[in-house]
Amino acid sequence: MRNLKLTIEYNGANFSGWQKQNGKRTVQQTLEDAFLSLTGESVTVEGSGRTDKGVHALGQVASVQTENQMPLKNFKIALNDLLPADVTIKKVEKAEENFHARFSAKKKVYKYLVQIGGDRDAIKHDLVAFYPYQVELKRMQDTSKLLLGKHNFKGFCSAHTNVKNFEREIFDLKISKCGKIITFLVIGNGFLYNMVRIIVGTLLDVGRGKLSAENVKKALETGNRQYAGKTMSANGLYLQKVEYRC
Amino acid sequence: MRNLKLTIEYNGANFSGWQKQNGKRTVQQTLEDAFLSLTGESVTVEGSGRTDKGVHALGQVASVQTENQMPLKNFKIALNDLLPADVTIKKVEKAEENFHARFSAKKKVYKYLVQIGGDRDAIKHDLVAFYPYQVELKRMQDTSKLLLGKHNFKGFCSAHTNVKNFEREIFDLKISKCGKIITFLVIGNGFLYNMVRIIVGTLLDVGRGKLSAENVKKALETGNRQYAGKTMSANGLYLQKVEYRC
Repeated sequence: MRNLKLTIEYNGANFSGWQKQNGKRTVQQTLEDAFLSLTGESVTVEGSGRTDKGVHALGQVASVQTENQMPLKNFKIALNDLLPADVTIKKVEKAEENFHARFSAKKKVYKYLVQIGGDRDAIKHDLVAFYPYQVELKRMQDTSKLLLGKHNFKGFCSAHTNVKNFEREIFDLKISKCGKIITFLVIGNGFLYNMVRIIVGTLLDVGRGKLSAENVKKALETGNRQYAGKTMSANGLYLQKVEYRC
Repeated sequence: MRNLKLTIEYNGANFSGWQKQNGKRTVQQTLEDAFLSLTGESVTVEGSGRTDKGVHALGQVASVQTENQMPLKNFKIALNDLLPADVTIKKVEKAEENFHARFSAKKKVYKYLVQIGGDRDAIKHDLVAFYPYQVELKRMQDTSKLLLGKHNFKGFCSAHTNVKNFEREIFDLKISKCGKIITFLVIGNGFLYNMVRIIVGTLLDVGRGKLSAENVKKALETGNRQYAGKTMSANGLYLQKVEYRC
Protein backbone atom coordinates (compact mmCIF):
# COMPACT_ATOMS: atom_id res chain seq x y z
CA MET A 1 0.00 0.00 0.00
CA ARG A 2 1.35 3.41 -0.95
CA ASN A 3 0.22 6.77 0.38
CA LEU A 4 0.29 9.35 -2.40
CA LYS A 5 0.21 13.13 -2.21
CA LEU A 6 -1.55 14.76 -5.17
CA THR A 7 -1.29 18.45 -6.08
CA ILE A 8 -4.36 19.44 -8.07
CA GLU A 9 -5.47 22.44 -10.13
CA TYR A 10 -9.11 22.98 -11.03
CA ASN A 11 -11.51 25.53 -12.37
CA GLY A 12 -14.47 25.44 -9.98
CA ALA A 13 -17.02 27.03 -12.34
CA ASN A 14 -18.59 23.77 -13.44
CA PHE A 15 -18.18 21.85 -10.18
CA SER A 16 -20.51 21.75 -7.19
CA GLY A 17 -17.41 22.20 -5.05
CA TRP A 18 -14.79 19.71 -3.91
CA GLN A 19 -16.78 17.35 -1.75
CA LYS A 20 -18.69 14.30 -2.98
CA GLN A 21 -22.46 14.72 -3.04
CA ASN A 22 -24.91 12.34 -4.58
CA GLY A 23 -25.62 13.10 -8.21
CA LYS A 24 -23.53 16.27 -8.31
CA ARG A 25 -20.38 16.88 -10.35
CA THR A 26 -17.67 17.42 -7.73
CA VAL A 27 -13.87 17.47 -7.92
CA GLN A 28 -13.46 14.67 -5.36
CA GLN A 29 -15.86 12.39 -7.23
CA THR A 30 -14.21 13.17 -10.55
CA LEU A 31 -10.78 12.22 -9.14
CA GLU A 32 -12.10 9.03 -7.52
CA ASP A 33 -13.76 8.05 -10.79
CA ALA A 34 -10.46 8.54 -12.64
CA PHE A 35 -8.68 6.36 -10.04
CA LEU A 36 -11.28 3.64 -10.34
CA SER A 37 -11.07 3.70 -14.09
CA LEU A 38 -7.25 3.56 -14.06
CA THR A 39 -6.55 1.08 -11.25
CA GLY A 40 -9.83 -0.66 -10.54
CA GLU A 41 -9.59 0.52 -6.94
CA SER A 42 -12.36 2.35 -5.09
CA VAL A 43 -10.22 4.88 -3.25
CA THR A 44 -11.06 7.89 -1.13
CA VAL A 45 -9.28 11.02 -2.26
CA GLU A 46 -8.91 13.11 0.92
CA GLY A 47 -8.55 16.81 0.20
CA SER A 48 -6.81 19.36 2.44
CA GLY A 49 -10.26 20.88 2.83
CA ARG A 50 -13.44 21.51 0.89
CA THR A 51 -13.77 24.27 -1.61
CA ASP A 52 -17.23 25.61 -2.46
CA LYS A 53 -19.05 25.64 -5.77
CA GLY A 54 -17.28 28.07 -8.09
CA VAL A 55 -14.04 28.27 -6.08
CA HIS A 56 -10.84 27.40 -7.96
CA ALA A 57 -7.62 25.73 -6.91
CA LEU A 58 -4.10 26.18 -8.21
CA GLY A 59 -2.63 23.87 -5.58
CA GLN A 60 -5.23 21.82 -3.76
CA VAL A 61 -3.55 18.87 -2.05
CA ALA A 62 -5.08 15.44 -1.54
CA SER A 63 -3.86 12.16 -0.13
CA VAL A 64 -4.87 8.77 -1.41
CA GLN A 65 -3.99 5.20 -0.45
CA THR A 66 -3.41 2.87 -3.36
CA GLU A 67 -2.14 -0.65 -3.90
CA ASN A 68 -1.23 0.17 -7.47
CA GLN A 69 2.52 0.10 -8.11
CA MET A 70 2.67 2.15 -11.31
CA PRO A 71 5.65 4.57 -11.47
CA LEU A 72 4.57 7.98 -10.14
CA LYS A 73 5.24 9.82 -13.38
CA ASN A 74 2.99 7.44 -15.29
CA PHE A 75 0.32 7.84 -12.61
CA LYS A 76 0.19 11.55 -13.30
CA ILE A 77 0.07 11.17 -17.08
CA ALA A 78 -2.52 8.40 -17.01
CA LEU A 79 -4.80 10.21 -14.54
CA ASN A 80 -4.59 13.45 -16.51
CA ASP A 81 -5.53 11.56 -19.67
CA LEU A 82 -8.69 10.37 -17.90
CA LEU A 83 -9.59 13.67 -16.23
CA PRO A 84 -11.74 16.36 -17.86
CA ALA A 85 -10.17 19.64 -19.05
CA ASP A 86 -11.10 21.56 -15.89
CA VAL A 87 -9.03 19.39 -13.49
CA THR A 88 -5.31 18.75 -13.83
CA ILE A 89 -3.01 16.84 -11.53
CA LYS A 90 0.18 18.89 -11.26
CA LYS A 91 2.17 16.48 -9.10
CA VAL A 92 2.02 12.93 -7.75
CA GLU A 93 4.46 12.27 -4.89
CA LYS A 94 5.05 9.44 -2.50
CA ALA A 95 4.07 10.58 1.01
CA GLU A 96 4.94 9.27 4.47
CA GLU A 97 2.63 6.57 5.71
CA ASN A 98 1.00 8.92 8.22
CA PHE A 99 0.59 11.87 5.85
CA HIS A 100 -3.00 13.07 5.60
CA ALA A 101 -3.84 16.02 3.34
CA ARG A 102 -6.26 17.52 5.87
CA PHE A 103 -4.83 16.68 9.28
CA SER A 104 -1.20 17.30 8.34
CA ALA A 105 -1.80 20.75 6.77
CA LYS A 106 -0.03 23.64 8.50
CA LYS A 107 -0.67 26.63 6.24
CA LYS A 108 -3.06 27.52 3.51
CA VAL A 109 -2.62 30.27 0.96
CA TYR A 110 -5.70 31.73 -0.68
CA LYS A 111 -5.76 34.29 -3.47
CA TYR A 112 -8.73 36.48 -4.33
CA LEU A 113 -8.98 38.40 -7.62
CA VAL A 114 -11.41 41.26 -8.06
CA GLN A 115 -11.88 43.80 -10.83
CA ILE A 116 -12.61 47.31 -9.58
CA GLY A 117 -15.08 49.24 -11.73
CA GLY A 118 -15.10 49.54 -15.52
CA ASP A 119 -16.97 47.18 -17.82
CA ARG A 120 -17.39 43.65 -16.49
CA ASP A 121 -14.87 41.29 -18.08
CA ALA A 122 -17.09 38.81 -19.91
CA ILE A 123 -14.17 36.59 -20.92
CA LYS A 124 -13.01 36.05 -17.32
CA HIS A 125 -16.49 36.18 -15.79
CA ASP A 126 -15.87 33.03 -13.78
CA LEU A 127 -12.22 33.75 -12.92
CA VAL A 128 -12.34 37.28 -11.47
CA ALA A 129 -14.93 38.84 -9.16
CA PHE A 130 -16.35 42.31 -9.77
CA TYR A 131 -16.70 45.28 -7.44
CA PRO A 132 -18.32 48.36 -8.98
CA TYR A 133 -16.89 51.00 -6.58
CA GLN A 134 -13.54 52.73 -6.52
CA VAL A 135 -11.50 51.85 -3.43
CA GLU A 136 -8.57 53.40 -1.56
CA LEU A 137 -5.85 50.76 -1.46
CA LYS A 138 -3.86 52.23 1.46
CA ARG A 139 -6.98 52.31 3.66
CA MET A 140 -7.56 48.62 2.94
CA GLN A 141 -3.93 47.69 3.57
CA ASP A 142 -3.84 49.58 6.87
CA THR A 143 -7.09 48.04 8.08
CA SER A 144 -6.04 44.53 7.02
CA LYS A 145 -3.28 44.61 9.68
CA LEU A 146 -5.98 44.29 12.36
CA LEU A 147 -6.68 40.79 11.08
CA LEU A 148 -3.12 39.49 11.41
CA GLY A 149 -2.36 37.03 14.20
CA LYS A 150 -4.61 34.78 16.28
CA HIS A 151 -8.23 35.89 16.62
CA ASN A 152 -11.69 34.56 17.12
CA PHE A 153 -12.95 34.90 13.55
CA LYS A 154 -16.61 34.09 14.24
CA GLY A 155 -17.57 37.53 12.93
CA PHE A 156 -15.98 36.56 9.60
CA CYS A 157 -17.67 33.18 9.30
CA SER A 158 -20.87 32.17 7.56
CA ALA A 159 -23.70 31.12 9.90
CA HIS A 160 -23.86 27.81 7.98
CA THR A 161 -21.08 26.08 9.89
CA ASN A 162 -20.80 23.27 12.41
CA VAL A 163 -17.48 24.49 13.76
CA LYS A 164 -17.17 25.09 17.54
CA ASN A 165 -13.72 26.65 17.70
CA PHE A 166 -13.49 29.90 15.76
CA GLU A 167 -9.87 30.69 16.57
CA ARG A 168 -7.62 30.88 13.54
CA GLU A 169 -4.30 32.55 12.85
CA ILE A 170 -3.59 34.74 9.86
CA PHE A 171 0.15 34.87 9.14
CA ASP A 172 0.03 37.36 6.30
CA LEU A 173 -2.44 39.34 4.24
CA LYS A 174 -1.21 41.24 1.19
CA ILE A 175 -3.26 43.49 -1.04
CA SER A 176 -1.88 44.69 -4.37
CA LYS A 177 -3.28 46.39 -7.44
CA CYS A 178 -2.36 45.97 -11.10
CA GLY A 179 -4.51 47.92 -13.53
CA LYS A 180 -8.15 47.34 -12.56
CA ILE A 181 -7.38 44.07 -10.71
CA ILE A 182 -6.87 43.91 -6.96
CA THR A 183 -5.25 40.74 -5.60
CA PHE A 184 -5.66 39.65 -2.00
CA LEU A 185 -3.21 37.03 -0.74
CA VAL A 186 -4.20 35.54 2.61
CA ILE A 187 -2.02 33.05 4.46
CA GLY A 188 -3.34 31.30 7.56
CA ASN A 189 -3.29 28.07 9.53
CA GLY A 190 -6.84 27.37 8.43
CA PHE A 191 -10.00 29.17 7.43
CA LEU A 192 -13.61 29.12 8.54
CA TYR A 193 -16.55 28.74 6.17
CA ASN A 194 -16.57 31.73 3.76
CA MET A 195 -13.89 33.45 5.87
CA VAL A 196 -11.70 34.65 2.99
CA ARG A 197 -14.69 35.86 1.00
CA ILE A 198 -16.05 37.80 4.01
CA ILE A 199 -12.62 39.30 4.78
CA VAL A 200 -12.29 40.47 1.18
CA GLY A 201 -15.85 41.87 1.14
CA THR A 202 -15.20 43.72 4.39
CA LEU A 203 -11.88 45.20 3.25
CA LEU A 204 -13.38 46.32 -0.06
CA ASP A 205 -16.22 48.04 1.81
CA VAL A 206 -13.57 49.70 3.99
CA GLY A 207 -11.69 50.76 0.86
CA ARG A 208 -14.80 52.32 -0.59
CA GLY A 209 -15.56 54.14 2.68
CA LYS A 210 -18.75 52.27 3.53
CA LEU A 211 -17.15 50.53 6.52
CA SER A 212 -14.26 51.57 8.75
CA ALA A 213 -11.48 49.95 10.79
CA GLU A 214 -13.94 50.16 13.71
CA ASN A 215 -16.15 47.58 12.00
CA VAL A 216 -13.27 45.17 11.71
CA LYS A 217 -12.32 45.67 15.36
CA LYS A 218 -15.90 45.13 16.52
CA ALA A 219 -16.37 42.04 14.34
CA LEU A 220 -13.20 40.57 15.89
CA GLU A 221 -14.13 41.55 19.46
CA THR A 222 -17.79 40.58 19.46
CA GLY A 223 -17.81 37.75 16.90
CA ASN A 224 -20.87 39.41 15.41
CA ARG A 225 -21.13 38.85 11.65
CA GLN A 226 -23.22 42.06 11.33
CA TYR A 227 -20.15 44.27 11.72
CA ALA A 228 -18.32 42.70 8.78
CA GLY A 229 -19.02 43.30 5.09
CA LYS A 230 -20.70 41.13 2.52
CA THR A 231 -19.52 37.71 1.35
CA MET A 232 -17.83 38.14 -2.01
CA SER A 233 -18.69 35.77 -4.87
CA ALA A 234 -16.92 32.41 -5.23
CA ASN A 235 -15.52 33.07 -8.72
CA GLY A 236 -12.60 35.27 -7.50
CA LEU A 237 -11.31 32.75 -4.96
CA TYR A 238 -8.33 30.40 -5.52
CA LEU A 239 -6.82 27.89 -3.10
CA GLN A 240 -3.27 28.61 -4.15
CA LYS A 241 -1.17 26.40 -1.95
CA VAL A 242 -1.22 24.11 1.08
CA GLU A 243 1.91 23.81 3.15
CA TYR A 244 2.85 20.87 5.34
CA ARG A 245 6.17 21.65 6.96
CA CYS A 246 5.90 23.30 10.37
CA MET B 1 -35.56 55.18 -35.85
CA ARG B 2 -31.90 55.02 -34.90
CA ASN B 3 -29.30 52.63 -36.24
CA LEU B 4 -26.94 51.62 -33.44
CA LYS B 5 -23.52 50.00 -33.61
CA LEU B 6 -22.76 47.73 -30.65
CA THR B 7 -19.30 46.45 -29.73
CA ILE B 8 -19.66 43.23 -27.74
CA GLU B 9 -17.40 41.00 -25.68
CA TYR B 10 -18.40 37.45 -24.78
CA ASN B 11 -17.07 34.21 -23.45
CA GLY B 12 -18.34 31.55 -25.85
CA ALA B 13 -17.95 28.57 -23.51
CA ASN B 14 -21.57 28.47 -22.43
CA PHE B 15 -23.15 29.63 -25.68
CA SER B 16 -24.17 27.55 -28.69
CA GLY B 17 -22.48 30.21 -30.81
CA TRP B 18 -23.66 33.62 -31.95
CA GLN B 19 -26.61 32.79 -34.13
CA LYS B 20 -30.17 32.29 -32.92
CA GLN B 21 -31.36 28.68 -32.88
CA ASN B 22 -34.56 27.44 -31.35
CA GLY B 23 -34.16 26.44 -27.74
CA LYS B 24 -30.40 27.06 -27.61
CA ARG B 25 -28.58 29.68 -25.54
CA THR B 26 -26.96 31.94 -28.15
CA VAL B 27 -25.36 35.37 -27.95
CA GLN B 28 -27.71 36.90 -30.51
CA GLN B 29 -30.79 35.65 -28.68
CA THR B 30 -29.42 36.83 -25.34
CA LEU B 31 -28.88 40.35 -26.74
CA GLU B 32 -32.31 40.45 -28.38
CA ASP B 33 -33.92 39.32 -25.11
CA ALA B 34 -32.13 42.14 -23.26
CA PHE B 35 -33.35 44.67 -25.85
CA LEU B 36 -36.92 43.41 -25.58
CA SER B 37 -36.79 43.58 -21.83
CA LEU B 38 -35.36 47.10 -21.84
CA THR B 39 -37.31 48.77 -24.65
CA GLY B 40 -40.26 46.50 -25.38
CA GLU B 41 -39.05 46.23 -28.98
CA SER B 42 -38.50 42.96 -30.84
CA VAL B 43 -35.33 43.87 -32.66
CA THR B 44 -32.90 41.88 -34.76
CA VAL B 45 -29.31 42.22 -33.61
CA GLU B 46 -27.25 41.71 -36.78
CA GLY B 47 -23.72 40.51 -36.05
CA SER B 48 -20.66 41.05 -38.28
CA GLY B 49 -20.70 37.28 -38.65
CA ARG B 50 -21.45 34.12 -36.73
CA THR B 51 -19.07 32.69 -34.23
CA ASP B 52 -19.26 28.99 -33.39
CA LYS B 53 -20.02 27.30 -30.09
CA GLY B 54 -17.09 27.92 -27.74
CA VAL B 55 -15.56 30.80 -29.73
CA HIS B 56 -15.06 34.07 -27.83
CA ALA B 57 -15.26 37.70 -28.89
CA LEU B 58 -13.42 40.72 -27.58
CA GLY B 59 -14.92 43.02 -30.18
CA GLN B 60 -17.82 41.47 -32.05
CA VAL B 61 -19.81 44.22 -33.76
CA ALA B 62 -23.55 44.23 -34.30
CA SER B 63 -26.05 46.70 -35.72
CA VAL B 64 -29.57 47.17 -34.46
CA GLN B 65 -32.46 49.41 -35.44
CA THR B 66 -34.36 50.90 -32.53
CA GLU B 67 -37.05 53.50 -31.99
CA ASN B 68 -35.95 54.00 -28.42
CA GLN B 69 -34.48 57.46 -27.77
CA MET B 70 -32.56 56.72 -24.56
CA PRO B 71 -29.14 58.47 -24.36
CA LEU B 72 -26.47 56.07 -25.69
CA LYS B 73 -24.54 55.94 -22.43
CA ASN B 74 -27.66 54.83 -20.55
CA PHE B 75 -28.36 52.25 -23.24
CA LYS B 76 -25.02 50.61 -22.53
CA ILE B 77 -25.45 50.65 -18.75
CA ALA B 78 -29.04 49.40 -18.84
CA LEU B 79 -28.30 46.61 -21.31
CA ASN B 80 -25.27 45.45 -19.33
CA ASP B 81 -27.41 45.37 -16.19
CA LEU B 82 -29.77 42.97 -17.97
CA LEU B 83 -27.11 40.81 -19.63
CA PRO B 84 -25.56 37.73 -18.00
CA ALA B 85 -21.93 37.83 -16.79
CA ASP B 86 -20.54 36.20 -19.94
CA VAL B 87 -21.66 38.98 -22.34
CA THR B 88 -20.71 42.63 -21.98
CA ILE B 89 -21.50 45.52 -24.28
CA LYS B 90 -18.32 47.59 -24.53
CA LYS B 91 -19.70 50.41 -26.70
CA VAL B 92 -22.98 51.72 -28.05
CA GLU B 93 -22.56 54.21 -30.91
CA LYS B 94 -24.91 55.92 -33.32
CA ALA B 95 -24.24 54.58 -36.82
CA GLU B 96 -25.05 55.91 -40.29
CA GLU B 97 -28.46 54.89 -41.56
CA ASN B 98 -26.97 52.45 -44.05
CA PHE B 99 -24.46 50.87 -41.67
CA HIS B 100 -24.82 47.09 -41.45
CA ALA B 101 -22.50 45.14 -39.17
CA ARG B 102 -22.08 42.33 -41.70
CA PHE B 103 -22.27 43.97 -45.11
CA SER B 104 -20.19 47.04 -44.14
CA ALA B 105 -17.31 45.06 -42.55
CA LYS B 106 -13.94 45.49 -44.26
CA LYS B 107 -11.50 43.70 -42.00
CA LYS B 108 -11.68 41.13 -39.26
CA VAL B 109 -9.01 40.43 -36.71
CA TYR B 110 -8.95 36.99 -35.08
CA LYS B 111 -6.67 35.90 -32.29
CA TYR B 112 -5.90 32.28 -31.42
CA LEU B 113 -4.26 31.27 -28.13
CA VAL B 114 -2.65 27.88 -27.67
CA GLN B 115 -0.54 26.39 -24.90
CA ILE B 116 2.37 24.30 -26.14
CA GLY B 117 3.10 21.25 -23.99
CA GLY B 118 3.33 21.09 -20.22
CA ASP B 119 0.40 20.34 -17.93
CA ARG B 120 -2.97 21.40 -19.29
CA ASP B 121 -4.11 24.67 -17.71
CA ALA B 122 -7.31 23.64 -15.90
CA ILE B 123 -8.13 27.22 -14.87
CA LYS B 124 -8.13 28.52 -18.47
CA HIS B 125 -9.42 25.30 -20.01
CA ASP B 126 -12.04 27.16 -22.03
CA LEU B 127 -9.86 30.18 -22.86
CA VAL B 128 -6.68 28.64 -24.29
CA ALA B 129 -6.29 25.65 -26.61
CA PHE B 130 -3.72 22.94 -25.98
CA TYR B 131 -1.13 21.40 -28.31
CA PRO B 132 1.00 18.67 -26.75
CA TYR B 133 4.01 18.89 -29.13
CA GLN B 134 6.97 21.26 -29.16
CA VAL B 135 7.03 23.49 -32.25
CA GLU B 136 9.62 25.54 -34.09
CA LEU B 137 8.34 29.10 -34.19
CA LYS B 138 10.51 30.31 -37.09
CA ARG B 139 9.34 27.44 -39.31
CA MET B 140 5.72 28.41 -38.62
CA GLN B 141 6.36 32.10 -39.22
CA ASP B 142 8.15 31.43 -42.52
CA THR B 143 5.42 29.09 -43.74
CA SER B 144 2.65 31.47 -42.70
CA LYS B 145 3.85 33.97 -45.34
CA LEU B 146 2.48 31.64 -48.04
CA LEU B 147 -1.00 32.43 -46.80
CA LEU B 148 -0.73 36.21 -47.11
CA GLY B 149 -2.65 37.93 -49.90
CA LYS B 150 -5.60 36.78 -51.99
CA HIS B 151 -6.09 33.03 -52.35
CA ASN B 152 -8.71 30.41 -52.88
CA PHE B 153 -8.95 29.11 -49.31
CA LYS B 154 -11.17 26.12 -50.04
CA GLY B 155 -8.42 23.83 -48.70
CA PHE B 156 -8.69 25.67 -45.38
CA CYS B 157 -12.46 25.52 -45.08
CA SER B 158 -14.71 22.99 -43.38
CA ALA B 159 -16.80 20.86 -45.74
CA HIS B 160 -19.89 22.07 -43.83
CA THR B 161 -20.33 25.31 -45.73
CA ASN B 162 -22.75 26.72 -48.27
CA VAL B 163 -20.27 29.26 -49.59
CA LYS B 164 -19.59 29.29 -53.34
CA ASN B 165 -16.74 31.81 -53.50
CA PHE B 166 -13.69 30.69 -51.54
CA GLU B 167 -11.48 33.65 -52.35
CA ARG B 168 -10.42 35.62 -49.31
CA GLU B 169 -7.55 37.99 -48.59
CA ILE B 170 -5.27 37.72 -45.59
CA PHE B 171 -3.64 41.07 -44.85
CA ASP B 172 -1.44 39.96 -42.00
CA LEU B 173 -0.64 36.87 -39.94
CA LYS B 174 1.58 37.22 -36.88
CA ILE B 175 2.77 34.42 -34.62
CA SER B 176 4.41 35.19 -31.29
CA LYS B 177 5.38 33.21 -28.22
CA CYS B 178 5.32 34.20 -24.57
CA GLY B 179 6.21 31.41 -22.13
CA LYS B 180 4.19 28.35 -23.13
CA ILE B 181 1.55 30.38 -24.99
CA ILE B 182 1.63 30.95 -28.74
CA THR B 183 -0.58 33.72 -30.10
CA PHE B 184 -1.72 33.80 -33.70
CA LEU B 185 -3.10 37.11 -34.97
CA VAL B 186 -4.84 36.82 -38.33
CA ILE B 187 -6.22 39.83 -40.19
CA GLY B 188 -8.31 39.35 -43.29
CA ASN B 189 -11.22 40.71 -45.30
CA GLY B 190 -13.35 37.77 -44.21
CA PHE B 191 -12.97 34.14 -43.21
CA LEU B 192 -14.51 30.87 -44.35
CA TYR B 193 -16.07 28.34 -41.99
CA ASN B 194 -13.37 27.09 -39.55
CA MET B 195 -10.70 28.83 -41.66
CA VAL B 196 -8.72 30.34 -38.76
CA ARG B 197 -8.86 27.11 -36.77
CA ILE B 198 -7.63 25.08 -39.78
CA ILE B 199 -4.85 27.61 -40.54
CA VAL B 200 -3.67 27.42 -36.91
CA GLY B 201 -3.85 23.61 -36.88
CA THR B 202 -1.87 23.44 -40.12
CA LEU B 203 0.83 25.86 -38.97
CA LEU B 204 1.22 24.03 -35.65
CA ASP B 205 1.63 20.74 -37.53
CA VAL B 206 4.25 22.48 -39.68
CA GLY B 207 5.96 23.77 -36.53
CA ARG B 208 6.11 20.28 -35.11
CA GLY B 209 7.48 18.85 -38.36
CA LYS B 210 4.47 16.71 -39.23
CA LEU B 211 3.56 18.89 -42.24
CA SER B 212 5.71 21.11 -44.45
CA ALA B 213 5.39 24.30 -46.47
CA GLU B 214 4.59 22.00 -49.41
CA ASN B 215 1.32 21.01 -47.72
CA VAL B 216 0.28 24.64 -47.43
CA LYS B 217 1.15 25.31 -51.07
CA LYS B 218 -0.79 22.27 -52.25
CA ALA B 219 -3.81 23.10 -50.09
CA LEU B 220 -3.85 26.58 -51.63
CA GLU B 221 -3.31 25.34 -55.21
CA THR B 222 -5.69 22.39 -55.22
CA GLY B 223 -8.30 23.53 -52.68
CA ASN B 224 -8.05 20.04 -51.20
CA ARG B 225 -8.69 20.03 -47.44
CA GLN B 226 -6.62 16.83 -47.11
CA TYR B 227 -3.34 18.72 -47.48
CA ALA B 228 -4.05 21.03 -44.54
CA GLY B 229 -3.81 20.14 -40.85
CA LYS B 230 -6.49 19.48 -38.31
CA THR B 231 -9.14 21.94 -37.14
CA MET B 232 -8.08 23.33 -33.77
CA SER B 233 -10.62 23.50 -30.94
CA ALA B 234 -12.97 26.48 -30.58
CA ASN B 235 -11.81 27.48 -27.09
CA GLY B 236 -8.61 29.24 -28.27
CA LEU B 237 -10.36 31.47 -30.83
CA TYR B 238 -11.28 35.12 -30.26
CA LEU B 239 -12.94 37.53 -32.68
CA GLN B 240 -10.82 40.48 -31.61
CA LYS B 241 -11.97 43.33 -33.82
CA VAL B 242 -14.06 44.21 -36.85
CA GLU B 243 -13.03 47.21 -38.92
CA TYR B 244 -15.31 49.26 -41.10
CA ARG B 245 -13.25 52.00 -42.71
CA CYS B 246 -11.84 51.15 -46.13
